[in-house]
Amino acid sequence: MSRNSGLPSCISPLLENFPTFAVLCCMQKLITRLAQKNSTKIVLVVLDGLGGLPLNGRTELETAATPNMDRLAQVSACGLHTPVAPGITPGSGPGHLSLFGYDPLEHQIGRGILEALGLGLEITNADIAVRCNYATMKDGIITDRRAGRIPTDQSRKLTEMLQKNIPRIEDVELTFAPGMEHRMAVVMRFPNALGKDAADIPDTAPQLEGRQPLKPLGSMKSAEHVAAIAEQLINRAHDVLRHEEKANFILMRGFSGKPDIPTFEQAYGLRALAIATYPMYRGLAKLVGMQAPAIEGSVEDEIAFLKDNFDSYDFFFLHVKKVDSYGEDGNFSEKVKRIEEFDVLLPQIQAMKPDVLVITGDHSTPAIIKGHSWHPVPVFLHAPYVLGNLCASFSERECFKGEFGVFPTVQLMPLILANALRLRKFGA
Amino acid sequence: MSRNSGLPSCISPLLENFPTFAVLCCMQKLITRLAQKNSTKIVLVVLDGLGGLPLNGRTELETAATPNMDRLAQVSACGLHTPVAPGITPGSGPGHLSLFGYDPLEHQIGRGILEALGLGLEITNADIAVRCNYATMKDGIITDRRAGRIPTDQSRKLTEMLQKNIPRIEDVELTFAPGMEHRMAVVMRFPNALGKDAADIPDTAPQLEGRQPLKPLGSMKSAEHVAAIAEQLINRAHDVLRHEEKANFILMRGFSGKPDIPTFEQAYGLRALAIATYPMYRGLAKLVGMQAPAIEGSVEDEIAFLKDNFDSYDFFFLHVKKVDSYGEDGNFSEKVKRIEEFDVLLPQIQAMKPDVLVITGDHSTPAIIKGHSWHPVPVFLHAPYVLGNLCASFSERECFKGEFGVFPTVQLMPLILANALRLRKFGA
Repeated sequence: MSRNSGLPSCISPLLENFPTFAVLCCMQKLITRLAQKNSTKIVLVVLDGLGGLPLNGRTELETAATPNMDRLAQVSACGLHTPVAPGITPGSGPGHLSLFGYDPLEHQIGRGILEALGLGLEITNADIAVRCNYATMKDGIITDRRAGRIPTDQSRKLTEMLQKNIPRIEDVELTFAPGMEHRMAVVMRFPNALGKDAADIPDTAPQLEGRQPLKPLGSMKSAEHVAAIAEQLINRAHDVLRHEEKANFILMRGFSGKPDIPTFEQAYGLRALAIATYPMYRGLAKLVGMQAPAIEGSVEDEIAFLKDNFDSYDFFFLHVKKVDSYGEDGNFSEKVKRIEEFDVLLPQIQAMKPDVLVITGDHSTPAIIKGHSWHPVPVFLHAPYVLGNLCASFSERECFKGEFGVFPTVQLMPLILANALRLRKFGA
Repeated sequence: MSRNSGLPSCISPLLENFPTFAVLCCMQKLITRLAQKNSTKIVLVVLDGLGGLPLNGRTELETAATPNMDRLAQVSACGLHTPVAPGITPGSGPGHLSLFGYDPLEHQIGRGILEALGLGLEITNADIAVRCNYATMKDGIITDRRAGRIPTDQSRKLTEMLQKNIPRIEDVELTFAPGMEHRMAVVMRFPNALGKDAADIPDTAPQLEGRQPLKPLGSMKSAEHVAAIAEQLINRAHDVLRHEEKANFILMRGFSGKPDIPTFEQAYGLRALAIATYPMYRGLAKLVGMQAPAIEGSVEDEIAFLKDNFDSYDFFFLHVKKVDSYGEDGNFSEKVKRIEEFDVLLPQIQAMKPDVLVITGDHSTPAIIKGHSWHPVPVFLHAPYVLGNLCASFSERECFKGEFGVFPTVQLMPLILANALRLRKFGA
């Protein structure tokens, strides 16, 4: 994944010659132009995977007893948002970028970066992140691309061994992080910010077992040095791992650099705090310049953390993971319970009197699908400047009657900013 | 009409230098990237010209007794789709291309091609299709551009005469097909696939009577040979027709080549079968790579054909023509009857248990307008992964309450594929 100016890398070279293209195509640039600061407070609660589908006629959200959200939705602007496009099921990366107001088709996050974020690694613009697999090599041939799916415990030990033996190559610092089973990630930190195509390196994993691994090869000039370091890393790792029966080699995939995304401060003039217990969501928030300290605990702990920091930021992204987790497991009733648990806590957030309070998800995770889905996600926005009184409760079906209708997720941030009176008038 | 790369003409010049632009910006390319195969079956029923407007307060669809469609719509995802853009009345070409998921503004079908398809001619990428008029020439001047609208019978005989006398010119095979009155079409089949601008030839019909016909002139190098063959054809036809009183000359219009459209297999990984009794709709389906055997008979025969072929394809496009025909005639009550007739047959389709069943039209043809119109077209999609229970019946007004809302027709195919679980997740 290459770096760019905040525009699709394919488009940005065109813009120098066609400036109006930028103005017309990039809503976020217009928003940035109109953004103004004030003292309003915005809270965006993301119940991960909130949207659902009916089991016995009612969705998870319709089944859950949510008197607090229902009461608030009645006097809020309601609707449903489409994270990427109709029919497209978003991953967590595109889902959150959209919520944060960034077009997920413009700003694609490399797999290596997401993996590294999920493992809690920091990413800067001098970094290349790569997903790795432990693999089995015999006589120069990859005989198992997953090293027999070695147990996570063993992978953890091997990864520590690599970290200890190969802390750096030349002037490049290496950080290894173990994943599940045969997976791990490495971040290569170079002394200086990297060029645009520095991560343009094809995967080294062969398509099939019984073949040689591929050498890392930079497609562009700026990737050649990165590829050379990667090659040394592969050789040194093979040396460190030479006595392992199964995991004696590493394959590298999804080379990616930090996407060049304008920060919340740059794009909206917002000082933003992310409150999330899972590393990947903190990582996604950091990509857009939010503060995202590592925290642990329950949703109630997250809300307490929000309260403690309420005076120090303008914008708060509060992430609730468990709703999605039970959706992914196909556990309808536990997903319902997590929604109900949040509802009980909602008055604690209301008590802080945010000027704009938004409750939604980053995508749908219907328990009957046991995974993310393409369905639009219910949302309500509570603020003084809405119509309200269009929906009887907070649910997928009621939200269709709301004043936001069905809309692209990237339009949510402009609506949030407008309701916080943080956007100036366009044109005289 | 010139051939193009399947991209908007405003963008395509840019793409040669920026190939990723195409990948990011064109939704169909994203769909192609995410498409996956499975064993699901999809049936798309197109009741041609379905949408209507009220006469005495109720539209055709609201007037029709449609208990089967109503029952199914209640538990389906409903909405209305806009074939091209608000206010734009689509022809049958754009209407169907949109339904098939191709942006009708990107993929414009030449008039010659549509005419040839409507007359049942096959079109390959070595073909140029042209609409022709029989005309009257006197002393080198066109005195009647329609040859006095000669009867269809006579036109048929003349066209047979042309076919017999001019089966080929040089190495170009000619196929003539008679149309109504003074109209006919010719397909020129060259020995090899033609270049991009090979059909860039202005019409030879003069703007006014009392003028000379124009010589066919290729605007681009690649069209010069085609123009030279066309000129020979005009001269030889004039010779064959020299004894005719009225129809002694041909004028050529709408030179067009086969549009370069990815097939259903390429775009979606779908093996698709078109079931249509009218040649033009089979032709449109063939343009996107569907199998479209010539069939005849009633709607019930079409459904029997669907059943016979249900195991051999993934996607079925079943076209019902008569709904539109009566709309075009301004015959409200007969249009109502055709809708009711289909409703009686619907259970036969349901009995095949398609995974996704969609019922809609390619455009609206309100009887009170006596022609195609710009109004969005009601649609329902029946599948296991919808909310449903938002609409009481299948009608224009009820569909506005549905979960699809009002949406561009090109978004229907992604929604169909998603509901057939044929699209992978976007991003991690």
